[in-house]
Amino acid sequence: MVSAGLVPAGPVSFLDGVRLVDHHCHSVVDGPLDRAGFEALLTEGPGPARGTSSFDSALGFSVRRWCAPALDLPAHAAADDYLARRTELGPEEVTRRFLGGAGVGALFVDHGFAADGLLPPASLGTAAGAPVGEVVRLEAVAEALADAGVDAGGYGEALRDAVAARTAPSADPLPVACKSVLAYRAGLDVDPARPEPGEVARAADGWLRRRAATGEPLRDPVLLRHGLWTGLDTGLPLQMHTGFGDPDEDLHRANPALLVGLARLVEPLGVPLMLLHCYPYHREAAWLAQAFAVVHVDVGLAVPYIGARAATIIAELLELAPYGKVLYSSDAFGLPELHLLGALRFRSALGGLLEHLCATDELAPADAERVATMIGTENARRVYGRMPA
Amino acid sequence: MVSAGLVPAGPVSFLDGVRLVDHHCHSVVDGPLDRAGFEALLTEGPGPARGTSSFDSALGFSVRRWCAPALDLPAHAAADDYLARRTELGPEEVTRRFLGGAGVGALFVDHGFAADGLLPPASLGTAAGAPVGEVVRLEAVAEALADAGVDAGGYGEALRDAVAARTAPSADPLPVACKSVLAYRAGLDVDPARPEPGEVARAADGWLRRRAATGEPLRDPVLLRHGLWTGLDTGLPLQMHTGFGDPDEDLHRANPALLVGLARLVEPLGVPLMLLHCYPYHREAAWLAQAFAVVHVDVGLAVPYIGARAATIIAELLELAPYGKVLYSSDAFGLPELHLLGALRFRSALGGLLEHLCATDELAPADAERVATMIGTENARRVYGRMPA
Amino acid sequence: MVSAGLVPAGPVSFLDGVRLVDHHCHSVVDGPLDRAGFEALLTEGPGPARGTSSFDSALGFSVRRWCAPALDLPAHAAADDYLARRTELGPEEVTRRFLGGAGVGALFVDHGFAADGLLPPASLGTAAGAPVGEVVRLEAVAEALADAGVDAGGYGEALRDAVAARTAPSADPLPVACKSVLAYRAGLDVDPARPEPGEVARAADGWLRRRAATGEPLRDPVLLRHGLWTGLDTGLPLQMHTGFGDPDEDLHRANPALLVGLARLVEPLGVPLMLLHCYPYHREAAWLAQAFAVVHVDVGLAVPYIGARAATIIAELLELAPYGKVLYSSDAFGLPELHLLGALRFRSALGGLLEHLCATDELAPADAERVATMIGTENARRVYGRMPA
Repeated sequence: MVSAGLVPAGPVSFLDGVRLVDHHCHSVVDGPLDRAGFEALLTEGPGPARGTSSFDSALGFSVRRWCAPALDLPAHAAADDYLARRTELGPEEVTRRFLGGAGVGALFVDHGFAADGLLPPASLGTAAGAPVGEVVRLEAVAEALADAGVDAGGYGEALRDAVAARTAPSADPLPVACKSVLAYRAGLDVDPARPEPGEVARAADGWLRRRAATGEPLRDPVLLRHGLWTGLDTGLPLQMHTGFGDPDEDLHRANPALLVGLARLVEPLGVPLMLLHCYPYHREAAWLAQAFAVVHVDVGLAVPYIGARAATIIAELLELAPYGKVLYSSDAFGLPELHLLGALRFRSALGGLLEHLCATDELAPADAERVATMIGTENARRVYGRMPA
Repeated sequence: MVSAGLVPAGPVSFLDGVRLVDHHCHSVVDGPLDRAGFEALLTEGPGPARGTSSFDSALGFSVRRWCAPALDLPAHAAADDYLARRTELGPEEVTRRFLGGAGVGALFVDHGFAADGLLPPASLGTAAGAPVGEVVRLEAVAEALADAGVDAGGYGEALRDAVAARTAPSADPLPVACKSVLAYRAGLDVDPARPEPGEVARAADGWLRRRAATGEPLRDPVLLRHGLWTGLDTGLPLQMHTGFGDPDEDLHRANPALLVGLARLVEPLGVPLMLLHCYPYHREAAWLAQAFAVVHVDVGLAVPYIGARAATIIAELLELAPYGKVLYSSDAFGLPELHLLGALRFRSALGGLLEHLCATDELAPADAERVATMIGTENARRVYGRMPA
Repeated sequence: MVSAGLVPAGPVSFLDGVRLVDHHCHSVVDGPLDRAGFEALLTEGPGPARGTSSFDSALGFSVRRWCAPALDLPAHAAADDYLARRTELGPEEVTRRFLGGAGVGALFVDHGFAADGLLPPASLGTAAGAPVGEVVRLEAVAEALADAGVDAGGYGEALRDAVAARTAPSADPLPVACKSVLAYRAGLDVDPARPEPGEVARAADGWLRRRAATGEPLRDPVLLRHGLWTGLDTGLPLQMHTGFGDPDEDLHRANPALLVGLARLVEPLGVPLMLLHCYPYHREAAWLAQAFAVVHVDVGLAVPYIGARAATIIAELLELAPYGKVLYSSDAFGLPELHLLGALRFRSALGGLLEHLCATDELAPADAERVATMIGTENARRVYGRMPA
């Protein structure tokens, strides 16, 4: 399913036939992008520093190498030529090429972040030729609830109702998971316990007043924990941002190891905890996945960003992570290129690792085939109770 | 000493003739194991998650690849075939084959954890054809003391006496080291100072009451520190659990870097601090080994668990760790397979690294020979004042 | 510029023609060294532990392999032969050979630490055949000010004047940057905000009294922060020690990730923050460099210390670090060998990585040339407003 011209470096045979489930991604920009706009989306930072270009990075060189051919340009095309050709083809065609080239079997989309100017999830699915599930961002539901008007005493129950409505199986796209960005809002080093209703009401009283006055985002730790537990109560897998992200977070306070207390509380409930991204703390995340039945991991976002080094990251992850607990995600946002690069690098990295293990007689080819399918698609299909069709 | 059929991948010549000192391990299960029992011992977690198998992991694939031939099965034998053959041979023969295949020159055994149903250390030594030393687990001594009856005011001195008795050179097996599992019980981020006698008596008063009532394990930080300093006072090397372990710990609070304060206090005393496991914080542990004369390191537990990636871990450890401060351990527990895999992966990893350094002319072969012996056996023989014969 | 006999392992073509800017180093010992003295400088610790040698380390083997030929000895010469030949040639000739072999285009020297017995920076530059800039160590300026006599109420302004004088463009060598060793003195986990004048006066009152009585070094967090902000106010790039160093620091409290709060405060000011060393937290530092326009990174100190593994460290750094934000430093101190090894390993590591990326068609050769120049020299020339001539 990887079209000619997009074949990644290294052997990928074991992943060639696997339509990946991308269990966490975002949509892509709906319109044209100039060079500044494109470069701003080629980094998790605020854009390139003065005197530098985002193209001069592992991700930037990956775009010129692996995305240029999908636009009928030679590999390593110059940045300006690349952007000119992108403009010439237009956003719709560009999106179609990159999403189509990713070869995914399903896309789970978080559309609760900076969704203005992004393609609706259904259109993203059409471009990818794959069904779309929705990841319900709990903090966005809470903020919408606050803005719609709710009193502090009723906030706790009202959020429960709002999350129930947003995750109803009749919703379109099909809700498949909840998600928390606790890491961005308060850090993962908070008390993981479910707060008492009285605490929630008191915290809501403060936040609702502040939000009405200043638009304050949901950053109150009590309300964040209430949201997280409200998500867990749905029984749907709970995705959590951990590791590498944008400058709103303190990276070291997004270390997934800090979730050990939450994992202990969730373990008896059996609700899957999906640790997203994890890099550069993926070895710690892998330990959590071994130590707790409910914990699952991916190395999304890092995979498209770090170029051919994705192979090393996946090897590091698979040191301790049980192979049945590892999933694929791109965490692509904004640029359709990231959907392609995520899939391409993941196929190349995991495929190359499996090929190497076979070549050194550490793994039998039949097991390699099985592992490729497990990590690429089957783990997601097993863990997520719902799959969009 | 690695028998035919067990030859690890890659060059191992420099380690071939070295009978390793395994300076930290546990004993193995004494009886037969069914599939669930075996899979539960193939992970540091509570067992495989529903819908997954512990065989689908770096460790599981290692067993099928490297242990199957020792049971006269083809490499990569199916899990069920492997377990059937294991049952057919019986625990005694299985233990003899794996321990014998490890090629160790001495085993230092911590028999103070979950010892029910494990082979006595002397029998483990017989199976390995190697003398056994004992690692005295300080928290187990304290809990035995509490259960035997002691008053709070006399607890501090009584523990000193009990540790003296347990570490007497006349004991059999020969006590070679003390060990603390502070990381599991309170985390390594506690005040490292020796507590005052009055503090100890007060803390003992509380704990002895609670233990009598509820069986509470020793988790009081004051008493843990008292135990640790009681161990240091023996002058024997003090082993400390750090890094990767079971879900009772908070991994990030088991980071050996947190022991810097203790290292500063112990440095003038000259008592060796042996940092066990360390993974995934082995680069930080390596710095401690360079910065403090008393600090020594290993990457036990990770070595058998992470498959062929052991080579990378050892390379990372040797970036900063002085070669004279690095030791071998398996940290094998329960499955005799782990004794074989620890030794086999360590030989392959360190041997392969040394071979690579010679091939790239970074190291002279005579130095490689010397380093192999140093890390495999001589460092342990130098640092441990006592060696069982 | 790397003389015959010093050619590092692996392909280095892309760096061959690049005269590196070493943006952070120290001077070298001015006189002869016996074996104990030499071994004490081959480690960041207090010297080799009893029964071990500093030569048995990645750095020690590097010296025997790569420095011996520069003294007309065979590669892998024995330590005693190496030291005898060193003595025979004398410190001046040894320094000339190693500094000359480094092939640097400029040296930025921190001469504010343990400068007794070190060559004056100008002589270091002569040996290297390169101009020298000065890195002004803020804590040293503050301690000199205290010792010269200042009253607590005037301390804040007096430090500002002293730093202004020491960083004046008319000074010789040319001051190019300020530097803080906050990591050593209080840890990086302090409040990053600029302290109020009243706080500074109160803290100065305490410290000046204690220093007069006991010689206490500057460890007060308020005064350290005042120094740091005084440095930032000059507008010169601010170098900060992070990561790997000597046992005075708590390594985990020197994690550059802890500087995220400072980075947020400095971002709107546009003053470059230069994170030095970073290892083993270089992946976290790389994220900071992507997330904040003002943040720049290097992996000095680790590069000469960890042998051929420098290649891996640089590959890990370049996963997330924008290529326009990465610089070269040796952090060499005491031994001229470290100036050579820093440059040689850096050339080999970055050159080898670029060669590999070209060989796997991830990078076009013209881009590899450009990246080599960017990281080796141009980034430093762009970021530092001043360059010595």
